[in-house]
Parts: sequence; structure tokens; C-alpha cells
Amino acid sequence: MSLNFAILGAGRIGQVHARAVASTPGARLVAIADPIAPAAEAVRAAYGCDIRTIDAILAAADVDAVVICTPTDTHADLIERFVRAGKAVFCEKPVDLSLARVKSCLKVVSAEGGKVMIGFNRRFDPDFMAVKAAIDAGRVGKVEMVTITSRDPGAPPAEYITRSGGIFRDMTIHDFDMARWLLGEEVESVFASASVLTDPQIGALGDYDSANVILRTASGRQAIITNSRRAAYGYDQRIEVLGSTAMVAAQNHGENRITLADGTGFHDAPLLNFFMTRYVAAYANEIAAFIAAVQGGTPMPTTTHDGLMALALAEAALKSVAEGRAVQVAEVL
Amino acid sequence: MSLNFAILGAGRIGQVHARAVASTPGARLVAIADPIAPAAEAVRAAYGCDIRTIDAILAAADVDAVVICTPTDTHADLIERFVRAGKAVFCEKPVDLSLARVKSCLKVVSAEGGKVMIGFNRRFDPDFMAVKAAIDAGRVGKVEMVTITSRDPGAPPAEYITRSGGIFRDMTIHDFDMARWLLGEEVESVFASASVLTDPQIGALGDYDSANVILRTASGRQAIITNSRRAAYGYDQRIEVLGSTAMVAAQNHGENRITLADGTGFHDAPLLNFFMTRYVAAYANEIAAFIAAVQGGTPMPTTTHDGLMALALAEAALKSVAEGRAVQVAEVL
Amino acid sequence: MSLNFAILGAGRIGQVHARAVASTPGARLVAIADPIAPAAEAVRAAYGCDIRTIDAILAAADVDAVVICTPTDTHADLIERFVRAGKAVFCEKPVDLSLARVKSCLKVVSAEGGKVMIGFNRRFDPDFMAVKAAIDAGRVGKVEMVTITSRDPGAPPAEYITRSGGIFRDMTIHDFDMARWLLGEEVESVFASASVLTDPQIGALGDYDSANVILRTASGRQAIITNSRRAAYGYDQRIEVLGSTAMVAAQNHGENRITLADGTGFHDAPLLNFFMTRYVAAYANEIAAFIAAVQGGTPMPTTTHDGLMALALAEAALKSVAEGRAVQVAEVL
Amino acid sequence: MSLNFAILGAGRIGQVHARAVASTPGARLVAIADPIAPAAEAVRAAYGCDIRTIDAILAAADVDAVVICTPTDTHADLIERFVRAGKAVFCEKPVDLSLARVKSCLKVVSAEGGKVMIGFNRRFDPDFMAVKAAIDAGRVGKVEMVTITSRDPGAPPAEYITRSGGIFRDMTIHDFDMARWLLGEEVESVFASASVLTDPQIGALGDYDSANVILRTASGRQAIITNSRRAAYGYDQRIEVLGSTAMVAAQNHGENRITLADGTGFHDAPLLNFFMTRYVAAYANEIAAFIAAVQGGTPMPTTTHDGLMALALAEAALKSVAEGRAVQVAEVL
Repeated sequence: MSLNFAILGAGRIGQVHARAVASTPGARLVAIADPIAPAAEAVRAAYGCDIRTIDAILAAADVDAVVICTPTDTHADLIERFVRAGKAVFCEKPVDLSLARVKSCLKVVSAEGGKVMIGFNRRFDPDFMAVKAAIDAGRVGKVEMVTITSRDPGAPPAEYITRSGGIFRDMTIHDFDMARWLLGEEVESVFASASVLTDPQIGALGDYDSANVILRTASGRQAIITNSRRAAYGYDQRIEVLGSTAMVAAQNHGENRITLADGTGFHDAPLLNFFMTRYVAAYANEIAAFIAAVQGGTPMPTTTHDGLMALALAEAALKSVAEGRAVQVAEVL
Repeated sequence: MSLNFAILGAGRIGQVHARAVASTPGARLVAIADPIAPAAEAVRAAYGCDIRTIDAILAAADVDAVVICTPTDTHADLIERFVRAGKAVFCEKPVDLSLARVKSCLKVVSAEGGKVMIGFNRRFDPDFMAVKAAIDAGRVGKVEMVTITSRDPGAPPAEYITRSGGIFRDMTIHDFDMARWLLGEEVESVFASASVLTDPQIGALGDYDSANVILRTASGRQAIITNSRRAAYGYDQRIEVLGSTAMVAAQNHGENRITLADGTGFHDAPLLNFFMTRYVAAYANEIAAFIAAVQGGTPMPTTTHDGLMALALAEAALKSVAEGRAVQVAEVL
Repeated sequence: MSLNFAILGAGRIGQVHARAVASTPGARLVAIADPIAPAAEAVRAAYGCDIRTIDAILAAADVDAVVICTPTDTHADLIERFVRAGKAVFCEKPVDLSLARVKSCLKVVSAEGGKVMIGFNRRFDPDFMAVKAAIDAGRVGKVEMVTITSRDPGAPPAEYITRSGGIFRDMTIHDFDMARWLLGEEVESVFASASVLTDPQIGALGDYDSANVILRTASGRQAIITNSRRAAYGYDQRIEVLGSTAMVAAQNHGENRITLADGTGFHDAPLLNFFMTRYVAAYANEIAAFIAAVQGGTPMPTTTHDGLMALALAEAALKSVAEGRAVQVAEVL
Repeated sequence: MSLNFAILGAGRIGQVHARAVASTPGARLVAIADPIAPAAEAVRAAYGCDIRTIDAILAAADVDAVVICTPTDTHADLIERFVRAGKAVFCEKPVDLSLARVKSCLKVVSAEGGKVMIGFNRRFDPDFMAVKAAIDAGRVGKVEMVTITSRDPGAPPAEYITRSGGIFRDMTIHDFDMARWLLGEEVESVFASASVLTDPQIGALGDYDSANVILRTASGRQAIITNSRRAAYGYDQRIEVLGSTAMVAAQNHGENRITLADGTGFHDAPLLNFFMTRYVAAYANEIAAFIAAVQGGTPMPTTTHDGLMALALAEAALKSVAEGRAVQVAEVL
């Protein structure tokens, strides 16, 4: 039997998920909700689903699962409401920008036995999955160091930055999740160093555009994350894991695979410049994994606990920047 | 207005095109035809189209275009019938294994003013398109040499080989088309050298599994094609164009982009092992190009003339192998 | 006129410099000194120079320059003695393991107007020179982040570690120098995180084998250094510089440039496994640069001040590990 | 005991060999001969050897071996004279431009039991040696196809071309030797296609600048050679061997290993632009191999027979171009 979906929010990421649902065998897009009528209408026209209000979707017998793509400050409330309504929930990260609110939301999810998956799409990228599979298969021995290079092609608009919760909660949060996933051991302490190097306006908004973070586990494993809001050469997404017997690395994805060689050298294409083109397979895979888990009654592949821990690392990083010291994760949890 | 399609033949390649049509905005899959009922039924179930006979499709008012994916020996007849019925036709290569039959078919197409596109899918591969674009933009100067390395992961079954027309008409024909497309000047002579190196059974069937071909134009430009029916490391598809001011090359596509480094070295994934995974974007692009040309009333991007010329090069190659000399294309046309 | 050299110490690195001197036009190896007779004799046999005592070299009229390759605890004394004797001095890093001793040595060098070059060989690696040249030519815009991955193939013997001053003073010191060289601005603070992950014996000796360091300048530029005493795949030496308009990276050097592709994938050679093979060109270049500076009367390309600053960063890193906070370089100087 | 050398000819390649001899343990450069006094003087000044006439060297008791670097038309005579004088001979390729003269020279060498090595330097390139070692170790299975891409950065001067014997005898001859070495079976037939594409002056001199050659053995193994006198991106020297179980390929060598990434893409250095920088290790290795063979009394690693066969393939290629057909090697031998 197919799983019937409603999508809450018809913005950029809502459209990505609408396409993923529509093209996944075993899933059916039933309804879209968005207060902005043309946005909802565009999804309806493309995939032939209903336009409904959130309340109608909440009460609908023909909706099994929802994908929450609304603004961040509505996530926790919507998770609670839909979990109570017995729907399976896929929610874009983060659950909330406040750790306290995330915790209270988790209590509801837990009390209700809710099925909630958080959208850490990178765990579903084929290359990163291959890295994880190599680790799990013992091909690198014991994991020692994880190196994550994560740079955006360019900074988002000021309006976005203002509401984003800052670079650690908005951008590094993906890398925090990857590091936790790959280290194979929970992070114990966080040291972060952040600067404003690409655009003073970002500093004027109280945020940073350049950051390096060292994460450390109880046994001394370490992860380094290096972030920038600007990389002239495209969307730079590299992961490297040093183990006791081997190193495994995921390379970047260029726009194409052609090389032009002339008197000045060999020239390859710049990187795919946008997270939606770079992670197109990851977005399809994560919805497929959600559907499989709901239909199979298996655990959610990424949980609200993962959402909580990634946010806690962001909080610890902010505290580390403020105090110039390594912060124990336990201090912020 | 959307373009209504019927697909003739629900085999492997028919399914590829069914998916491409179904997922292309502006196209609608109306009917599938196949004498093997379960094959037709599978397409119907997946995309919700009708199952009809070829005759019914020929007469149908709601079908604008057909995709011919039937056995090779039916292509020329079907092209003629559907052109006469006023349908736009997309036909898998080759038009026929006999040059004479191809020529007579072309006369009908020409007399009827038919819109016929031949499925040289590689021209629509994003990397090869980028190579062509680099040439057309003058980035390599004057084209001098084209090198095409084209190796299958493994040989097809004996039954396929028997009906295939042999390695030059079945496999090299794609490379002949690429060479013509990239040389920028018509081929004048062909020298081919063919061997049986991977499997004596192929030789017993009167075919070859390993071949090298040199093509030459009037001005002395040359193309080299190197083929094998077996490459242990996957589906090897490389193109290189040497020009007066630069060289441009399209690299292979691996299964993923991860590297594992251990005491024995650095290890990357093998190549994508199947033409359908390697050329998935090409298949989508070629159907989109066909639709755009039909809807826009613009010339077909690949024509029956291209089909004729690629087959003529194959004929010349066979004659060259038999006679141990460079054969003028004019000798076989 | 050629520059006459004596080499103090005929161990591994002394032999490297003997070869470099012997093969550099404009240089002549006059004498070798080593208390271990067979070691001195080997150099004499290979290059035809005299065996002399250090005192004899100090007094020799036919020696213009010395290369100090003796144990670390003799460096500062020898620098002072040879500077006072009016000889040009090339000294292997570090000047001393004690910052105070380095400072007092520098006073003598300064007072005597001595010509002293410290052996930071990596600044003379052709690839790293090309990285620096790209920066200096403005090809990356303003430098923002420097990433240095520096991993040894395997740990040195316990005896070496005991006398080495620890990973930061022995191994990271090269990376500290590279970071200072590439950042284009003096380092202001240091955060370091060190672990014992590859061999508990290293921990038993009071040292670490795995470390990550974040360096930071006044304007917020950052450098990350990631170190390990063990990399299964060889001697890993990568540098990457992110600037405002471009990124420039120096890749690793494999044992050869061949690729074997089979059913399991594409296989390249492991990295050159030893600093002497990896940096063979760098060692030759640094001696050539020393000779050029002495003969040309130009400033030393690397100075005792560079030696002091790299050691200060090591001291700050040790303090950072001990205190779990970012340490100002000014605190240790 | 060391092997005493004289070098005949102090031109470009004579200087390369002088350096190789001078820096090889077990070899001593005793004398240089060149009718152009400043050329001989330069070698004498650099390495401290005598300047002597060829006749004096022929009679000298202190000369064990000679390296013949004189003009091609003197090679065969000098080989015969020095073999008769009992000296070991290293001779630059080719033995002669006339097959008949090469054969008569070989008779003398054979009758005298002479030790003669021909300078096919590429066999001693570390990468190509690694390719050969992989084949010999059975790592590619049975060899099926060899692909050699060999392009010069730019054409030599007209004067050189006039005396060179043409592209096949001068340039392709190296590739013919590599193909014979790697195919593991003697070549039976040759087809060649040659054009003038880079410079009409080369055509006016009766030569070609662009050529493709297919070589074929009795069992059907094939080699393709693709040559151009001009490659905008540097000295292109690639080899690829397809076997039944794997493919092994030797990549090109860039000027450095840095990559610059900006908004237009990723940029690597052009290739090393000159055969002397590209093959510096090969030149050193071949002289070392010659010395080892002379001192060890083992067979010469490359023989006059190799010289004969490579020239025969060049003759066959010329005949093939003239007659437009595959030429049996037996026709020209």
C-alpha cells in the first residue's frame, strides 16, 4: 500500500520534497499547504495534489505522513500537533533554535511514541553513505580523525542570516551531524573559532562567515570542521576520515567531467554551485528512507535526538567562541 | 500543448524511453505496444498508459509521436508507416543493417517531409555536449585529432551478437557518429583492424571483440576509435579532441566519488558498469530534444542522414578489415 | 668564487646536506665533522672532503659556511660559536627546545650581525613555493584560511620521541612555520587539541600522536593544522589556502603515476613514504638559497626569528592543551 | 672497479649523458670528444675530464665504454669501430636511417660479440617500468591492446626535420619500441595514416606532423600510436595497456602538483614541456642499466636488434602511408 503525503510549506525546500515524494514508488502526494496561494498552486499544478490548510491536513484521514517545510519557528509546534494526530512526520532541520524548546518537543514525541525524522539530508548522499559503509565494514580500522570541509558558494541574504540563528545553528549544524555520524562516539567537548572575513555586513548582524571547529570525544577522537560562507569555486563539500589502517575521503562534484588543456594548464569545471543540485540524490534518498521506515515499522534513520545533539554542538560552539575555551557539551545540555 | 507519445516495444530500451517521456514536462505517454503481454503490462502499470496494437497507434488521433524500440529489422518499415501517417518518429539506431534499405527508407522520409530522429544518445550526454560546446566556442582552435575509447564491460549473449550485424554496426556505430559530430568535417576514408581476443565464441559467430579504427577527412583530420567488448573495470567511455590551441577531454564516470587510501595505495570505485546508468542523463536529454524540435518545428537534432552515414562507416570498416586497406566511404555509399 | 662548506654531524640529515652541497654549482664540501668515525668516513669517501674536528673547522680559513646537523641541544652553542667566528651558518631546526635559550642565542646572532638560516625545508618545496607565488601574485585575493594536513607514515622510535621535545616542537613546528609563511599576518592565538590514538607507548612517554591546532591572526584569518604520527597510506603533506577570490592547494606525491584498473576499481600508488624522498627537491633548493643569500649578501630566506616564532607557537599549543583554552602567543614570548 | 667512459659528441644529449655518467656510482667520465671546441670545453669544465679525439679514445687503454651522441649518419661506423676496439658501446637511437646499413652494422656487432646498447630511454622511465612490471607480474592478465599517446609540445626546426628521416623514424620510433616492449609479441603488420595539420612547412619538407598507427601481432593483439608534433598543453606522454583482467595506465607529469580553483573552475599546471625534464630519471636509469650490464656481464637491456626492429616498423609505416594499406613487417625486413 502506498503512503499518502501532505507537504507543509511550498517554498524552495518544499518543492524539492514534493518532487521526491511524487517520483518515489510507494508514495503519493495528496495535499500541499501554504498561505501563499501562488506557491501552493504551483505545486498543485505540477503534481496534481489538493491544496489544503494545515488544520484540514491534520484532520485528514487520507494523509499518513507530513513533510514540514515551514519556517523554523513553527517546526516544534507542528511536530507536536502532527505526532498527536498520529501522523508520521518528516521535519526539516532544525527542530527549533532554542535547546529548551527542542527538549520539550522531544518529550512530547517520546510520550506519544511519535515517528519523527529530521532532515539531515547529507547522511543520504551516495558518496557519504559509501564513506560510512567503508567505516562500518572495518575498511579504515578504528576511526581517529574526521575532517569536514564545508563551504558555501556565497552568503545568503541579510534577511535570511538574521532569522537563521547564526552560522553554527544554520550551516555548521549539518557538519555537526556528519561528524557525530562518522566519529562513532559521542562528542564530549567543542572548541570553535569564528571570524568575519568575507563581508562586514555579516558581522554587523552579529554573525560570522568563517569558522573552524574542533570536536573531541571521550577517547580522544577528533573532528575538524572548516566553514566559510564564500568559496569562489563553488559549493565545497568534502569529508575525510582517518582510521588506524586507512583513510577514506569523499571528493567534490564538478559541474561536468571535462578537462580542457591549453598552454596555461589543465582546466576542470567549477563545483556544482547549489545545495539542491549537489544533493539531488540525497534528497530523493532521504524521503525514500523515511517511507521505508514508516512502512516497515523500523526506527527512523535520523531522529529528533540527532536534531537535539547537533543543536547542542552549535550552542557549545557559540559558547566556545565567546569564552575562548573548549566547552563541554554537558555544559549546554 | 503537450505532445502525446506511444512507445513501440516494451523491452529494456523501451522502458528507458517510457520513463523519459513520463518525466518530461510537455510530454504524455498515451500508449504502449508490445506483442509480449507482460512487458506491455509492466509499462502500463508503471505509467498508467493504454496498451494498444501498432495498427491502432498508427490510426490514433491522440498520438502525435512514436518511439520505435522494436527489433532492428522492423525499424525501416515502421519509420515509413508512421511518417506516412503524419506522426513524428524517434527511432533507435540503426535504421536497418542494410545500407540499401536505409537509403530507400530515407527517400520515403524525404518525400513525405517526415520528422524522424535517430537515437544517437551519446550526443546528448552532458559531458560530450560540453566537449562539443568547447569546440564550437573555438576553445580548442581547429580540430585535428579525435580519440574515442569505447569499451563495454562485457560481451552481450551470443544470440544478441548473431542478430547485431557485428561489432561495427552494433557498437562502433555510436563511436562513428561521435567522430562525425566532433571532427567537423565528413569522413573520407576508413581503416579498421579487428581481432578476437576476449572470447573465441565471438569469432565462431563471425564477429570480432576488439577493434581499432582510423577515420580520415579530406583535409587530413583523423579520428581513432578503440573498442573492446570487455573491460574488467567497467563501461569505459572517453573522448578526447586535440585542437590547434587546446585539447579537451571527457573523463569516465565512476560509481562514486570516494577514495580509500591504505598501505597498498589509493583506491577509487570502478566505472558505472552499464550503459543505462552511465547515460541516464543522455536518454532524458535526447527525448527532451526530440520534443523540443517537434514542438518548435525546428530541425531534428539527429537525422536519418546521420543514421545512414554512421552505417556507411561501419560498412567501410568491414570492407577494410576484409581487404587490409583504407576504404573510401564513397566506395560503399 | 665558490663557497666552501663544512658539515657538522654526519647522520641522516647531514648526509642529505652533504649531497646537496656537493651537487650545487658554486659550493664545495671541504670538511665533515662527526665523533662517530665511520659516519664521518662515509661522507669523506663519497665526496672526497676532509674529516676534521669542530674546533678545527671553527679555526679553518678555508671554510666559509657550516651546516649544523648535530643533536638539537648543541645547536644554540654552535650557532653562537660559528657566528662569532664569522662563518655563515645553516642550522637544522629547532634552534633549541627552550624559548629562553633561543632568545639568548638570537641576541648573540644579532649583536654579531651573523648570517644564520634555519632549515625550514618545506618553504623550498617546488609545490609549496608555487602556492606562495600564487598568493603573492594576488591569484587568490586576500588570504582567509590555511589548511595544513601533515601526517607521518609512522611514529619515530621511543628514544627519538623522548629527546624530541614532543609532537608540537618536533613535528608541528614545520607546519607552524608554513602557516606563518602563508597567512601573511602574524599569529596571535593558538588552540590545540592533542590525543594518543595510535600507540599508548607514546602517551606513556608524555607525548601525543594526534593533534589539531587552530591558529588565528589579529584580523581573524585562521589556519588549521591536522597532525598524526601514523598514516597507513604514506607521508601525507597537503596545503590548502582559501582566499577571497580563489583557493590554491598543493596535492600529495605518489610513488609513481600509474593507475591499475580492475573489477574492484582504480588503484594508484601509495604516497612517497619518507620525508627525504618527498622533499628531495626542497633540500637541494634550501641549500642553493642559502648559498645564493651568502654570496649575494641578501637577507637569509629563513631566519632565527622564524625559528623563534615557530617554537613560540609550539609552546602556546602545549599550554593550550594543558589549559583547554586559546592561548595568546604573547603569553609565551 | 669503476667503469671508465668517454662521450662522443658534446651536444644537448651528450651533456645529458655526461651528467648521468658523472653522477653514477661506479662510473667515471674520462674523456669528451667534439670537433666544436667550446662544446667539449664546457663538458670538461663541468666534470673535469680530458678532451680527446675519437681516434685517441679508440686507442685509449683507460676507456672501457663510449656513449655515442654524434650525428645519426656516423652512428653505424662508430659502433663498428668501437666494437672492434673491444669497447662497450651505448649509442643513441637510431643506428642508421637505412635499414640495410643497420643490418650490416648488426652483422659486425654479432661477429665481434660486441656489447652494444641502443638508447631507448623511455624503457627506463620509472612509470613505464612500473607499467611493464605490472604486466610481467600478471596484474593485467593477457595483454590485448596498447594505446600510446605521444605528442611533442612543438615541432623542431626545419633543419632538424630535414635530417631526421621523418616523423616515423625520428619521433614514432620511440613509440614503436614501447609498443614492441609492451605487446609481449612481435608486430606483424603496420597501418599508418599521416597528415600535415600543424604547419604547412613540414609538408613542404616532405614530412608529416600528425600520425596514427595501428600495429598488429600474429595473435591479433593491437597497439595504437597517436602522434602530433604540437600539443599546446605540453609534452604529452601517456601509455595504456588493456589486458584480460585489468587495464594499467601511466599518466602525464605536470610542472607541479598545485591546483588553483576560482569561479571559472579548477586549474592545474601544464605538462613538463621538454623531453629532458620529463625523462630526467629515465636518462639516469638507462646509463645505470648500461653500467650494470657491462659490469655484470649480463645481456644489454636494449639491443641493436631492438634498434633494427623499431626502424623496420618506421619503414613499414612509411610504406603504409604511401600505399594506403596494412604492410607486413616482413615486406620491409
